[in-house]
Amino acid sequence: MIEDNRPLDVVILAAGQGTRMRSALPKVLHPVGGRPMVAWAVKAARELGARNVVVVTGHGAGQVEAALTGPQGAPDPGAVHQPQLVFARQDRQQGTGHAFVCGIDALGDHADADVLVLYGDTPLLRTETLRALLEDHRTRDSALTILTGELPDATGYGRIIRDLEGNVERIVEQKDLKPHEQIVREFNSGVYLMDSRASGLAHRITNDNAAGEYYLTDLLELYHAEGEQAHAFKLSDPDEVLGANDRRGLAELEAILRRRINMAHMQAGVTLQDPHSIRIEDGVALGRDVILEPGVILRGRTRLADGVTVGAYSVVTDSVLEAGVVVKPHSVLEGAHVGAGSDVGPFARLRPGSVLGPGVHIGNFVETKNAHLDAGVKAGHLAYLGDVEIGAETNVGAGTIIANFDGVNKHRSTVGAGVFIGSNSTLIAPRTVGDAAFIAAGSAVHDDVPEGAMAIARGKQRNIEGWSRRYWGGMADKVQRKLPWIAGWLERRD
Amino acid sequence: MIEDNRPLDVVILAAGQGTRMRSALPKVLHPVGGRPMVAWAVKAARELGARNVVVVTGHGAGQVEAALTGPQGAPDPGAVHQPQLVFARQDRQQGTGHAFVCGIDALGDHADADVLVLYGDTPLLRTETLRALLEDHRTRDSALTILTGELPDATGYGRIIRDLEGNVERIVEQKDLKPHEQIVREFNSGVYLMDSRASGLAHRITNDNAAGEYYLTDLLELYHAEGEQAHAFKLSDPDEVLGANDRRGLAELEAILRRRINMAHMQAGVTLQDPHSIRIEDGVALGRDVILEPGVILRGRTRLADGVTVGAYSVVTDSVLEAGVVVKPHSVLEGAHVGAGSDVGPFARLRPGSVLGPGVHIGNFVETKNAHLDAGVKAGHLAYLGDVEIGAETNVGAGTIIANFDGVNKHRSTVGAGVFIGSNSTLIAPRTVGDAAFIAAGSAVHDDVPEGAMAIARGKQRNIEGWSRRYWGGMADKVQRKLPWIAGWLERRD
Amino acid sequence: MIEDNRPLDVVILAAGQGTRMRSALPKVLHPVGGRPMVAWAVKAARELGARNVVVVTGHGAGQVEAALTGPQGAPDPGAVHQPQLVFARQDRQQGTGHAFVCGIDALGDHADADVLVLYGDTPLLRTETLRALLEDHRTRDSALTILTGELPDATGYGRIIRDLEGNVERIVEQKDLKPHEQIVREFNSGVYLMDSRASGLAHRITNDNAAGEYYLTDLLELYHAEGEQAHAFKLSDPDEVLGANDRRGLAELEAILRRRINMAHMQAGVTLQDPHSIRIEDGVALGRDVILEPGVILRGRTRLADGVTVGAYSVVTDSVLEAGVVVKPHSVLEGAHVGAGSDVGPFARLRPGSVLGPGVHIGNFVETKNAHLDAGVKAGHLAYLGDVEIGAETNVGAGTIIANFDGVNKHRSTVGAGVFIGSNSTLIAPRTVGDAAFIAAGSAVHDDVPEGAMAIARGKQRNIEGWSRRYWGGMADKVQRKLPWIAGWLERRD
Repeated sequence: MIEDNRPLDVVILAAGQGTRMRSALPKVLHPVGGRPMVAWAVKAARELGARNVVVVTGHGAGQVEAALTGPQGAPDPGAVHQPQLVFARQDRQQGTGHAFVCGIDALGDHADADVLVLYGDTPLLRTETLRALLEDHRTRDSALTILTGELPDATGYGRIIRDLEGNVERIVEQKDLKPHEQIVREFNSGVYLMDSRASGLAHRITNDNAAGEYYLTDLLELYHAEGEQAHAFKLSDPDEVLGANDRRGLAELEAILRRRINMAHMQAGVTLQDPHSIRIEDGVALGRDVILEPGVILRGRTRLADGVTVGAYSVVTDSVLEAGVVVKPHSVLEGAHVGAGSDVGPFARLRPGSVLGPGVHIGNFVETKNAHLDAGVKAGHLAYLGDVEIGAETNVGAGTIIANFDGVNKHRSTVGAGVFIGSNSTLIAPRTVGDAAFIAAGSAVHDDVPEGAMAIARGKQRNIEGWSRRYWGGMADKVQRKLPWIAGWLERRD
Repeated sequence: MIEDNRPLDVVILAAGQGTRMRSALPKVLHPVGGRPMVAWAVKAARELGARNVVVVTGHGAGQVEAALTGPQGAPDPGAVHQPQLVFARQDRQQGTGHAFVCGIDALGDHADADVLVLYGDTPLLRTETLRALLEDHRTRDSALTILTGELPDATGYGRIIRDLEGNVERIVEQKDLKPHEQIVREFNSGVYLMDSRASGLAHRITNDNAAGEYYLTDLLELYHAEGEQAHAFKLSDPDEVLGANDRRGLAELEAILRRRINMAHMQAGVTLQDPHSIRIEDGVALGRDVILEPGVILRGRTRLADGVTVGAYSVVTDSVLEAGVVVKPHSVLEGAHVGAGSDVGPFARLRPGSVLGPGVHIGNFVETKNAHLDAGVKAGHLAYLGDVEIGAETNVGAGTIIANFDGVNKHRSTVGAGVFIGSNSTLIAPRTVGDAAFIAAGSAVHDDVPEGAMAIARGKQRNIEGWSRRYWGGMADKVQRKLPWIAGWLERRD
Repeated sequence: MIEDNRPLDVVILAAGQGTRMRSALPKVLHPVGGRPMVAWAVKAARELGARNVVVVTGHGAGQVEAALTGPQGAPDPGAVHQPQLVFARQDRQQGTGHAFVCGIDALGDHADADVLVLYGDTPLLRTETLRALLEDHRTRDSALTILTGELPDATGYGRIIRDLEGNVERIVEQKDLKPHEQIVREFNSGVYLMDSRASGLAHRITNDNAAGEYYLTDLLELYHAEGEQAHAFKLSDPDEVLGANDRRGLAELEAILRRRINMAHMQAGVTLQDPHSIRIEDGVALGRDVILEPGVILRGRTRLADGVTVGAYSVVTDSVLEAGVVVKPHSVLEGAHVGAGSDVGPFARLRPGSVLGPGVHIGNFVETKNAHLDAGVKAGHLAYLGDVEIGAETNVGAGTIIANFDGVNKHRSTVGAGVFIGSNSTLIAPRTVGDAAFIAAGSAVHDDVPEGAMAIARGKQRNIEGWSRRYWGGMADKVQRKLPWIAGWLERRD
């Protein structure tokens, strides 16, 4: 956070329609890296330590406001600083200058604050960059600092014309460039940091131009008229201010963000076996010597401790994996906590509320939900463990189902430690199975099982000799055609 | 379709061996975008409204002919126009001119038609491009129009030499280029559109050259000798006439086609989270605000309505997903119809004949086949639903199997509305279960169940106290080593 | 193998720490293409027919030595030539010259051998390249041959300065380059092939330089002092000597290796539907007309015969698939042998010891382990087949579990040919089921079943009329809210 006496207010312009998105969703709500574009600007404002944040909405205003006050837009629970989030509606779109005035007016008196203008469709702008901008602004005691970038070919952008001291003299739109200005490669990002006069000056912007719009760039002249110099702060990476106007643009932002995140993890000691196929959201934390196989997707607040391996094509969301956990390919984890040294998958699904102790084994086609599995529990094959506590070292046989649902309610069961649950068993919840109990394979357990007891709940076997001969003999024609081995066997038996 | 009095005949040259494919499959049958290369040419000819289409086959002629008359090559059921499809065999490969003659002769009299020459290994050529070529040809009242392209470096291609009026004077092969012609960047695609003299003129092509082959390019001189000008129609995208000679070439065509298709969907309002990992065949239709996560594959005649989301790595073939359907990661759908607002997966498999009403829930490790599930049916875990009708709001417990197979025949079952099927139940088909019936968990249902009845078909539970102590005690050595918790429990009990 | 009287010794320098890997694993043990980097150098040395191979270790020496003597580093069982593998420890890192001396001294007397210096972090160097280097060296009767490469911009590398005859005059480090030498594009790879004087000369290298290190490049001058010329052998592909210093570098090596391997398979007649998403390790062998869909991963000693198709996102390790096998998407195979014409998946898991005869069908959510399935066995849905022999044409019903585990031991079962196992059955191992036996659906089979007999082991069904009305009536409030169909039904019944 910037150490300075002056507070910072942030105005985020997010009223645009984004027609080229061809979407029922307002443009700024299209997600990049798992978060709506506008939420990136709000996040940056928060991380900067802003006092007030005002989001100027227009098209789909209700949707944008709902998204930013819902869980996606909500601040991190652990955030040190919670600025006030305010919305201002720009009912008719009359230009960026007008949008800014809508926003700044919504803040009321702000005589003492710096004002930063951000945009709802440039999610790649880093908080570190903004922090550096703020520091530069305050170090120079600047009245207006413009964030600029440089491109080999800046055609199409508003260009920055500097004076001999390097201050910003003019911002010239493409169509107004003089021949010798065509080669200027420094462009205006539209991000401005201004002192507290910004509010008053913005009200003096006029729409006396061909388009009849209010342009925020006019603030430059207004500051000059106040006798102030404008400074430029140049981005090292011009991609940071890239915006998205259509789905291709969205995909490009995603790709840049992905490369940025993946690069940082690789530098920190994570192996990405095929980086361009791996997608890691920015809230994910990865320990040293984590190995991610091709196609892995890590989302939300996922935390992987040192030495965790995640197998190909697995998708892990909001989960914590302790040291040395191995997730095998094609697993889906959400809201799970997996203890050190456990192994999961392939084809495992851990749903929210799955809490696995150390050394647990979850095999293929196994689903857990609201399930607490103590150290060393094994459920290797084809099982559903829902709403259950299972004690240490219990072995859950293949095909085991905890029948937790009665048609309306879910019920919770408890299975002790050291229990052996035979294959294809069903536990009809709510059920309590004592420590070291033994459930015979194929049992439908409808009563509790005491400690150390064996429960058996299945039919007794009868063998009916000679049955197959009659059975298959009754459909001899089809057997002849479809089951040559059986047909031969029938012949041999006749 | 072109509105013109003259009909159009199309000759597709598809006799080449493609040795570098190193394949038992003839070169033109290698698929690109899910369709054999030669089928793209046939499709384009059909979409152009051709009267006759003749495919000249040679290597693997039988295979090629079978493929084009089988389901892959068959015309769209809804196509407005069905040209006659004819095959001509070129038994010895004596050059493109010879191949063309084989083809044109197979059409018999065609004095009144324009003739278009296409190739069996250039699947990227668009119907729109050919339509523009045809329009240009007819607007100019051209005798011969050559489709050309332009490359920064056209080395290796036959080059187009134009006269002062811009007409095509000569086509010069690489080895015959004069020094000042080396820089020509316009190349001959080999696609020609000609008036009805083409047939007669082609018979005059000789093989009086070093290779002893008949070259189709000789038609240019023959038309000149008739006093006709030849026109060039230049492609805007030279990739359209790229061919594939080996598997690398195939992979390049696939990549170009994929980018083309993906780009069009993005422009129309579909979010592709990682476009280069997503593969959409050209017969797929996508609504607005469809979201495709990384690695999704959409094949065949799949139709996704507005707002459908398909999760990472899911594969959807020939399926219809109504508005708002959510397919979670790692699902495989084929020939399924999913009602609005349903959710499917992860790890779900819908097989042909799966028809789901609105609001159906299919969870993990669930397979459906020839299954009609009414509104609100839930099958959340580990189930096989084959050859069955299931009424509205029925709840299918985890582990439920519809046992539809008796070893030779499949049987169909009917389950009513509002039924509760307990976990790990088996319905032995053919079975009828009435509305609002209740099946106890673990039941093997071998009789029908009346409306509102509870069916129970399982053993009664017995608990045998003290059993575990004897059981584990009998293998104390191994328990000591492998099951420390049990070993401790045994000690505590002794 | 090189036919020459002189033996070849290889010194592999592998002592570096690799701090930028930020890893608990020594740098040379980070895998590329599924094999530790240093193991590629050892493999190349073996394939070259080296007499002795000495690996100079330092950081993590114990780990490196263990890895190279464990299964990963072990020679191919079928290798014709097994050189002696020796380790030398370089306790303090005093430069490449010092490391080389440590290595060569460990070999003892080697007066008669050529010596090749390789590196533990350049896994892309091909054996063919080294073989060509060796041949060149011996053809010229060279004393010292330096492997060099050429880059458009070789900034940062030690540069090769040749004399008028084309011999190597000097190797100049970047900082010592004279202005006219800046443009030299030929660089020193560090790979040297030397005659038997190398050992003696290397002992004369001094550390009389700014860094106080012993440089292996000093050997050039020492050979010159002997009156010998040094030759350069230039790589056609400079990527072969790329090393990895951090995880980004690792990912780049992986990508290059993947492209190289994929390209070779495509040239040999394999279709890769999306090559950049497919990962094939170098020990994998693929037949003609194999088709790999997007995202396929093939590892270890996998062998795919002609015409095998592997579906999207499947992972196949150390498995043999005979001709025409179809693996559907999302399958995981390890240590399996699949007979000709079998089909597997989607969502199938074959674990080690799975041996499938021809024409076997394994469907979704089926797991096999130590399972021998004869010709034509079908297990289509949700099954676990562990430790079992199953005879020809047996049909394994959906939900079948072979309960092979008693809590401590695994037991093996035998199922005959032509058996029909009904759905949701459990076979409690060890069990023997005779040919043509029939197991009723839902049975828990705890006794053996004779040939041709029907086994039934389940409860008899009872239907309790009117039960549902009482059941749902008892929770009418919730039913009203959650189950409108049932609520309506209750009303209609009342």
